[in-house]
Amino acid sequence: MSSSDIFIGETIGTAILILLGGGVCAAVTLKSSKARGAGWLAITFGWGFAVLTAVYTTTALSGAHLNPAVTVGIAVKDGEWGHVPVYFAGQILGAMIGAALVWVAYYGQFRAHLTDPEIVGDLADEPIEGPHDGTPKQPAGPVLGIFSTGPEIRVVWQNLATEVIGTLVLVLAVLTQGLNDSGKGLGVIGGLITALVVVAIGLSLGGPTGYAINPARDLGPRIVHALLPLPNKGGSDWGYAWIPVVGPLAGGALAAGIYSLAFA
Amino acid sequence: MSSSDIFIGETIGTAILILLGGGVCAAVTLKSSKARGAGWLAITFGWGFAVLTAVYTTTALSGAHLNPAVTVGIAVKDGEWGHVPVYFAGQILGAMIGAALVWVAYYGQFRAHLTDPEIVGDLADEPIEGPHDGTPKQPAGPVLGIFSTGPEIRVVWQNLATEVIGTLVLVLAVLTQGLNDSGKGLGVIGGLITALVVVAIGLSLGGPTGYAINPARDLGPRIVHALLPLPNKGGSDWGYAWIPVVGPLAGGALAAGIYSLAFA
Amino acid sequence: MSSSDIFIGETIGTAILILLGGGVCAAVTLKSSKARGAGWLAITFGWGFAVLTAVYTTTALSGAHLNPAVTVGIAVKDGEWGHVPVYFAGQILGAMIGAALVWVAYYGQFRAHLTDPEIVGDLADEPIEGPHDGTPKQPAGPVLGIFSTGPEIRVVWQNLATEVIGTLVLVLAVLTQGLNDSGKGLGVIGGLITALVVVAIGLSLGGPTGYAINPARDLGPRIVHALLPLPNKGGSDWGYAWIPVVGPLAGGALAAGIYSLAFA
Amino acid sequence: MSSSDIFIGETIGTAILILLGGGVCAAVTLKSSKARGAGWLAITFGWGFAVLTAVYTTTALSGAHLNPAVTVGIAVKDGEWGHVPVYFAGQILGAMIGAALVWVAYYGQFRAHLTDPEIVGDLADEPIEGPHDGTPKQPAGPVLGIFSTGPEIRVVWQNLATEVIGTLVLVLAVLTQGLNDSGKGLGVIGGLITALVVVAIGLSLGGPTGYAINPARDLGPRIVHALLPLPNKGGSDWGYAWIPVVGPLAGGALAAGIYSLAFA
Repeated sequence: MSSSDIFIGETIGTAILILLGGGVCAAVTLKSSKARGAGWLAITFGWGFAVLTAVYTTTALSGAHLNPAVTVGIAVKDGEWGHVPVYFAGQILGAMIGAALVWVAYYGQFRAHLTDPEIVGDLADEPIEGPHDGTPKQPAGPVLGIFSTGPEIRVVWQNLATEVIGTLVLVLAVLTQGLNDSGKGLGVIGGLITALVVVAIGLSLGGPTGYAINPARDLGPRIVHALLPLPNKGGSDWGYAWIPVVGPLAGGALAAGIYSLAFA
Repeated sequence: MSSSDIFIGETIGTAILILLGGGVCAAVTLKSSKARGAGWLAITFGWGFAVLTAVYTTTALSGAHLNPAVTVGIAVKDGEWGHVPVYFAGQILGAMIGAALVWVAYYGQFRAHLTDPEIVGDLADEPIEGPHDGTPKQPAGPVLGIFSTGPEIRVVWQNLATEVIGTLVLVLAVLTQGLNDSGKGLGVIGGLITALVVVAIGLSLGGPTGYAINPARDLGPRIVHALLPLPNKGGSDWGYAWIPVVGPLAGGALAAGIYSLAFA
Repeated sequence: MSSSDIFIGETIGTAILILLGGGVCAAVTLKSSKARGAGWLAITFGWGFAVLTAVYTTTALSGAHLNPAVTVGIAVKDGEWGHVPVYFAGQILGAMIGAALVWVAYYGQFRAHLTDPEIVGDLADEPIEGPHDGTPKQPAGPVLGIFSTGPEIRVVWQNLATEVIGTLVLVLAVLTQGLNDSGKGLGVIGGLITALVVVAIGLSLGGPTGYAINPARDLGPRIVHALLPLPNKGGSDWGYAWIPVVGPLAGGALAAGIYSLAFA
Repeated sequence: MSSSDIFIGETIGTAILILLGGGVCAAVTLKSSKARGAGWLAITFGWGFAVLTAVYTTTALSGAHLNPAVTVGIAVKDGEWGHVPVYFAGQILGAMIGAALVWVAYYGQFRAHLTDPEIVGDLADEPIEGPHDGTPKQPAGPVLGIFSTGPEIRVVWQNLATEVIGTLVLVLAVLTQGLNDSGKGLGVIGGLITALVVVAIGLSLGGPTGYAINPARDLGPRIVHALLPLPNKGGSDWGYAWIPVVGPLAGGALAAGIYSLAFA
């Protein structure tokens, strides 16, 4: 694959991933959305099928990593790091484009939500659940959850561990697909399988932190949240931002290590 | 493919699509339906598996476009417009047949719903959310949502943008399946993938306008709504009707443009 | 296929279909079930994946019709009626075995449900929605819905039409899979597709009558309901029993006719 | 396959299965989980896609039994028992590792849940539904359901029968996949099918006992529940523990018997 194909593929693919993934969070959260209150199953299937759509659309261009943790896992496994910066650049740029498109598609809903005194007032009064371990309290805005993840309970080691474990499962499933493909042809439906693995991780490990399991998925939209001219949007919770970057990268590398020990 | 196969395939396929897609809207909306109140997940899976059923049944006859935006996207990509009018004709006719069959299947439920003073009276009293941008207010009937889409907030540019974005994702996914098919055999399960892409778009981008993403899906049933002898059915919201036609066609053409630039 | 393989395959397959399909109805209905109140999506996915399980388990033995309407559709299409009685016999016997196994698996729940005065008393006081067209009123028991289907509104022509339309969609999808298989290899995942078609029909056309779309699925368990020694079980609604037999058989034959005209 | 590959594959695979399966139970149960109250559909899809993830990741190493009942069914069918102890050892060890990882991922949620006087007090006051058949009453802790299964109504023969029937369906579907694979290529997507069969069994037969259908899935986490230093965790309900071991093993053997009689 050429560097330009990788960059274009990862940009388009991650944009689709975040447009649809952030979109479902907007759909179930915002006032005057037909899907408001559709619940956790809608969120987890929405993110899973977002992965499916993005992977199928761009796999022929870039292999559809769409996630720096997957890129790191594959690089550690193969020992090839040459294209890694191109992958990262496309993923971050794509994630930012996707988050901006969510804002366009839900423009009126964002305005209605953020100018409703009942919604904005409520959140201003209600502090984020306190710092159990001494980290400073971070104010989170009423629509930050449409862009980035955040923990229900702030315990740094646990939040980090949950992201490491979730990403480990994801990247191990991605790395082992090659075994199935060459041996038994299962790889043909690899995009579908990966999508359902993401649904599984969301349902099972999403409870504590909202399962970033992808640094670009969290960081790109958080930057867009900070930049967008949204009234009453509140803070972007930068104190937490390193956890969904470091945790997934560590999980991806750990998956490659386990793969090398047990499967190679 | 012969013109008659295309016409028959698109007519049968789009009829099945709208029978099942409109059917799930009837199922969750109407009084005395066992599925009343089943929620947004039921609607989005219902439409997605409606696509699956329709595509599998008719793909051997016409290629199962079932959507003028898909037909336009493929025509722009291939530069071949000869069969386009036949596709369009079958799609609109099929959509009208499908909408009429929903009425037959839910005959008693329509009657019970539209003669319940509590339901009809409530809706008569409650105006559609006002025109934020100066378009005239359109009265929408209590069962129009079973036939056609409508926006939660009327902002012409946003409503149009949401339909463009949603259709762009759909048609790009359809166009790139050819790449996967020739290269890796993924096309074998193309109908299933397309169905799940439609679920994804519904979950993620359905909140503002109800995701027409298909001009025939919206216009055909809207005509049937205007023609059917339903008591207290109210207006067919013709002032909005151009948006789910123009937006998806533009989205389909845009997808073909992006495909030509990035994937070809 | 030998007659004995057909009989054994259809018996085992239809038993699994009704065990899992009737099981999900018991799961969401009965007192002291963990799934009580899980809703319409649970029912429709439960029946769909029941089809999947039953088809995959027995397709190598009998082709896994598991439904007299499918058997009739294939017989009309192929003009071969020799094995039809064997298929029917296995299907009815299997459906009865499956319904009896639901009773075994939910034994304590049936007892708790049917001896709860609040549940049994409520239903005794509440008559079935009246006969809009002059058919005699039929008392339906509090657990009949776990065994057989019934209409929300009793309008004979509509109830029949809904069953004809739903079965037409199902059998047309089954008959056209052969086209896809020979042409493009889609038939490999035919069991999964059929299952999702059944989910689609349930979500979209299940609202009025509960989508029997299979004479054995309705008649076999209705006989078991009449035979089982359940306290306070009430009537088996025999006045309605012919509709989910005649409607699906007509729908299957109609599908074969449409197939011959449009697809052959 | 070598013994070490089997042991490593079953350990990793069963750990993933229980991490994700137990994880979804934690997600819908525990205080301060984003998924709290997501309901029965979330649980059943969570366990099903847990099976998918675990099978795809480890099938190339060990064949991905991940369930002593599957191992017994295959051993009875093939008459080969040599590797059975290695399979069992990996399955139990993996299940214990998975359950411990659930505790790590939900550490703060476990603490918040078990120190909430309203939650812990409520459960202390509310006895388990009584012994209808004379077995001694077992106290069950407020988080035991995240680790192991338990019956809604304690009737030994029914609880056993429900587990036998559910496992019979599962193992029969696993054993017959070989027929489909050699004959028609369906085996390519065997992991996906098995996952959806598990969703079906959960939706349909999970109501009475919570569908262990796998001795390792129940026993391994129950041991971890007994060992973990959780405040107010209550008893581990050892009086029930034999049923989800004996029932599934009997169901797996029975499936192999039916397979030999009807399918071989």
